Amino acid sequence: MWHYQAPLRDMRFVIEEWLAAPADWRRMPAFESLDSELAAQVVEEAGRFASGVLAPLNAPGDRQGCRFDDGRVSTPDGFPAAYRAFVDGGWAALACAAEDGGQGLPQLLNAALLEMIYSTNHAWAMYPGIAHGAYECLRAHGSPELRERYLAAIVSGEILPTMCLTEPQAGSDVGLLRSRAEPAADGSYRISGSKLFASGGEHDLTENILHLVLARLPDAPPGSRGISLFLVPKRLPDGRRNAVRCDGIEHKLGIRGSATCTLSFEQAEGWLLGEPHKGLAAMFVMMNSARLHVGLQGLGHAEAAWQNAAQYAAERRQMRAVRRPEGRAEAPADPIHYHPAMRRTLLELRTLTEGMRALGYWTAHLLDEAEQGADPALRARAQGRAMLLTPLVKAFFTEQGFRLASAALQVFGGYGYVQEYAIEQTLRDSRIAMIYEGSNEIQANDLLLRKVLGDGGTVLCDLLEDFRAEAEIAAVSPECGAFAAALGQYCDRLTTATEGLAAAAARDPERPYRAAGDFLRLLGLVALAFAWTRSARLAAGRTDDPFYAGKLESAAFFFAYLLPEADHRLALIEASRQPLPFLPE
Amino acid sequence: MWHYQAPLRDMRFVIEEWLAAPADWRRMPAFESLDSELAAQVVEEAGRFASGVLAPLNAPGDRQGCRFDDGRVSTPDGFPAAYRAFVDGGWAALACAAEDGGQGLPQLLNAALLEMIYSTNHAWAMYPGIAHGAYECLRAHGSPELRERYLAAIVSGEILPTMCLTEPQAGSDVGLLRSRAEPAADGSYRISGSKLFASGGEHDLTENILHLVLARLPDAPPGSRGISLFLVPKRLPDGRRNAVRCDGIEHKLGIRGSATCTLSFEQAEGWLLGEPHKGLAAMFVMMNSARLHVGLQGLGHAEAAWQNAAQYAAERRQMRAVRRPEGRAEAPADPIHYHPAMRRTLLELRTLTEGMRALGYWTAHLLDEAEQGADPALRARAQGRAMLLTPLVKAFFTEQGFRLASAALQVFGGYGYVQEYAIEQTLRDSRIAMIYEGSNEIQANDLLLRKVLGDGGTVLCDLLEDFRAEAEIAAVSPECGAFAAALGQYCDRLTTATEGLAAAAARDPERPYRAAGDFLRLLGLVALAFAWTRSARLAAGRTDDPFYAGKLESAAFFFAYLLPEADHRLALIEASRQPLPFLPE
Repeated sequence: MWHYQAPLRDMRFVIEEWLAAPADWRRMPAFESLDSELAAQVVEEAGRFASGVLAPLNAPGDRQGCRFDDGRVSTPDGFPAAYRAFVDGGWAALACAAEDGGQGLPQLLNAALLEMIYSTNHAWAMYPGIAHGAYECLRAHGSPELRERYLAAIVSGEILPTMCLTEPQAGSDVGLLRSRAEPAADGSYRISGSKLFASGGEHDLTENILHLVLARLPDAPPGSRGISLFLVPKRLPDGRRNAVRCDGIEHKLGIRGSATCTLSFEQAEGWLLGEPHKGLAAMFVMMNSARLHVGLQGLGHAEAAWQNAAQYAAERRQMRAVRRPEGRAEAPADPIHYHPAMRRTLLELRTLTEGMRALGYWTAHLLDEAEQGADPALRARAQGRAMLLTPLVKAFFTEQGFRLASAALQVFGGYGYVQEYAIEQTLRDSRIAMIYEGSNEIQANDLLLRKVLGDGGTVLCDLLEDFRAEAEIAAVSPECGAFAAALGQYCDRLTTATEGLAAAAARDPERPYRAAGDFLRLLGLVALAFAWTRSARLAAGRTDDPFYAGKLESAAFFFAYLLPEADHRLALIEASRQPLPFLPE
Repeated sequence: MWHYQAPLRDMRFVIEEWLAAPADWRRMPAFESLDSELAAQVVEEAGRFASGVLAPLNAPGDRQGCRFDDGRVSTPDGFPAAYRAFVDGGWAALACAAEDGGQGLPQLLNAALLEMIYSTNHAWAMYPGIAHGAYECLRAHGSPELRERYLAAIVSGEILPTMCLTEPQAGSDVGLLRSRAEPAADGSYRISGSKLFASGGEHDLTENILHLVLARLPDAPPGSRGISLFLVPKRLPDGRRNAVRCDGIEHKLGIRGSATCTLSFEQAEGWLLGEPHKGLAAMFVMMNSARLHVGLQGLGHAEAAWQNAAQYAAERRQMRAVRRPEGRAEAPADPIHYHPAMRRTLLELRTLTEGMRALGYWTAHLLDEAEQGADPALRARAQGRAMLLTPLVKAFFTEQGFRLASAALQVFGGYGYVQEYAIEQTLRDSRIAMIYEGSNEIQANDLLLRKVLGDGGTVLCDLLEDFRAEAEIAAVSPECGAFAAALGQYCDRLTTATEGLAAAAARDPERPYRAAGDFLRLLGLVALAFAWTRSARLAAGRTDDPFYAGKLESAAFFFAYLLPEADHRLALIEASRQPLPFLPE
């Protein structure tokens, strides 16, 4: 009953019109041969892979789950074959550089691919999930030998990497980790320790697995400044099994087809990646890309939720509606998408999903600009904005993804609570994204404390300049004038609130921590106002085409029904003046 | 790892101080021999049952689920024995009249019992879940013969009733149901049809099951005015199996230990309950009580979520906090309940849970007043208020229950996503309560359209008088003046918004339907402001006792951090002027 159709029309709109990416690609040497048509073909082909190969495995994979048997993990039926198809289709290497054997395509197109993969099979997507991040990390920090040994294998998809970070006592606080690494005579290291929640720590998709492990050297200072990063393969270059053992897999709320492993390293052989004690910095190369991808999981789930709720609500008939679309005759029972409460839910699903798509793809496009742009100043600017947007995309999108999955489930009524329509799986799968790769609370602190207050608001101001520029352009359109005015006003309010927090932090250092979650949501809403102002401007005057008419309707809905939450968040930022008591011990 | 301790201290506070129920009981002939001590003993004993018998079966029951085998349903291990203990303890008959063999205790104490049962085992609670409603329905509408045959058996717990309402094409819209009832020569009926989502439609807890079935008589007018209610036992009085078959059970997101059955009735023997074609009215006796109980499910889940999150956050250490409670030394990692984001989450859990407890118990107490009060005018007044509060409690509490379960899960981080701590079960179990017994959207329409605008706002005004009276009393307390002033202001704003909607509805009949969900949340927040003003007033001057000091802290938190959402809801009610477009067909 669950269905998925790649939202190609909206993806093209975002890539070609909202971002006008092809014009930027022409200015980037790496992508100068890429045009709209080729990009659209890649996205279309990716959509075929997602809906044809991954979607059919989604519900069965959830029901079957992974099996653990004496250190071995079997993934659900069809998962290994889907991975081979993924590799054969060149999808693993989509955004890897051509010189490393990749396809050399932009992060932007990879974002479209990932959105569709997450919409259709989040659990499966966990296996290749960090491959691109590991590729970037190894490329940036690996010695020539390590790059030689593993870079091509990651790009070809022959070896899948994992991230081994969490330990029982060290979750959000990586600084508490205890795994040890001892130097061996041959320049390698012997890694020992226990790692938790390692996604794809063991599986049957590839022969070899490359663990990226955080551990302490003997002379490591305590805390997060004493952590180093190591590459620890499951099979050593000479074919021997390394001393890495999977002790079990987790029974989870969702993404049940993904093997979340407990791993033991017992004097396992590995190599240092990057500088001693600077493992966190090296890992962050990976985590930034991973955080954007987790945000795209929220988008993917929102899209799946929207599609399924929209179809069900158009077909299910219950009760007479107070109003019907013009020309529709009375019936004993109307499609439920006539009912006002359902219309609100569906419009919220559509508007947030499409708005997040613009923002998420924008972030990916900024990463392309930061890496491949011709002008160093513009590259640095794009990098700054992408770094600011990353925690926003991660936390805001994943929260919306889960919330919208629940809203969609509600549209199905009792049918939403049973397995048949699989919307309950979307709810379960989407929930993890609020937790991993840095919980949403940590993202909020990162955004406000580090990315905004940490640089005196410089990058935020720069970002808001983009928003204000859009407001100025859109202001002249009669259909968009009100949207543009509201966008401008909320940019001002956001600026004032930020200045207030900066000033207050000096007197009350805890204040920004109390306000961080609301600040993140406020920025998310203002960014969506930007997204919808631009979408409305691009749609203005083209309402003969239902696609653009829908864009203007969604924009009107966003400004009337969704943007008011920004006032609420401003009020809560104001409320955060009041200290919070401590809870009883 | 999941734990539960009956919140006896707070229950006594609500019953004895917030409601001052014992003074009211003394004025009700049915309860004149009930005093605080006896009531507290009942609640304490109920807590022992819930935490001792039901809590240990919660997680195992979820993992095992129900088994279906050729028409038979086996509930999880321990469920039948727990039901026998429930019956033997007299809990099934707690609020049934003494003349019917019950304990004759107030609905208020039953609400406390139910809250604890829902906290500890929602799935199990589904089996006796509608027994009290069926008892009330049979008592009010049953012929002497039917009452003679089944009333005592329901009260003793020997037979468990089910509600057979939903059909594949008839969910929220009961009027679409097709099951038929043909009169037989002996005055009985032959019922035929297919019913879906019948909780406890088949199980191994009792020998016999009494189905309350909605069906159409041959001469029934179409729609909801042609529906009659029938009693259809699994086993007929002479011991024969009736023609009722369980065709299967649902695989659900949560409450997996509850058998949600598809039932076929094939010329099954049954008897008319109440008047022909007036089955919905008769069923509503049952549904009102059921809706309050569903609201208590939201409260029960919120309480379980709060307890578990609070304990975990006090024990788990990660990262250094920006601030610590006075006198606490620096440590490499602080308990996470020092961190501002966690404090906000925990305070929200505590404040909403305790506030909902006051409101939910108040509704139950109003039902006692409505049924047992000595003064007919006060009885009618209490009945009106309880009817207004019922959809509010159902929808507001269940939405909060799910939202708070998710907030608590977030406190656990990755551990929240795995089975170990069972908070993920709370999330799954709590979600159904937003759907069944009338979806939350239907409750919102019922509240605004029928209960508020339907009587010209009379009962709402009456309710707000209570709120304003509390504001006046509390205004004189120096610790509560600000709370009281805010409560008064929000009563005024709510009144103005209601008048605005009433006026607008004349011009735009769809308007209140667009605003109903926000109106419900607004009323919920204003009711919580009432609850917390009274709690703060009762606690004022007693802060030497940490219990009362906590109440004042929670009140301050509510008014600073939670009540601002009321402004947001007011803004959205204002926004609902704007029409909503229809979605593409």
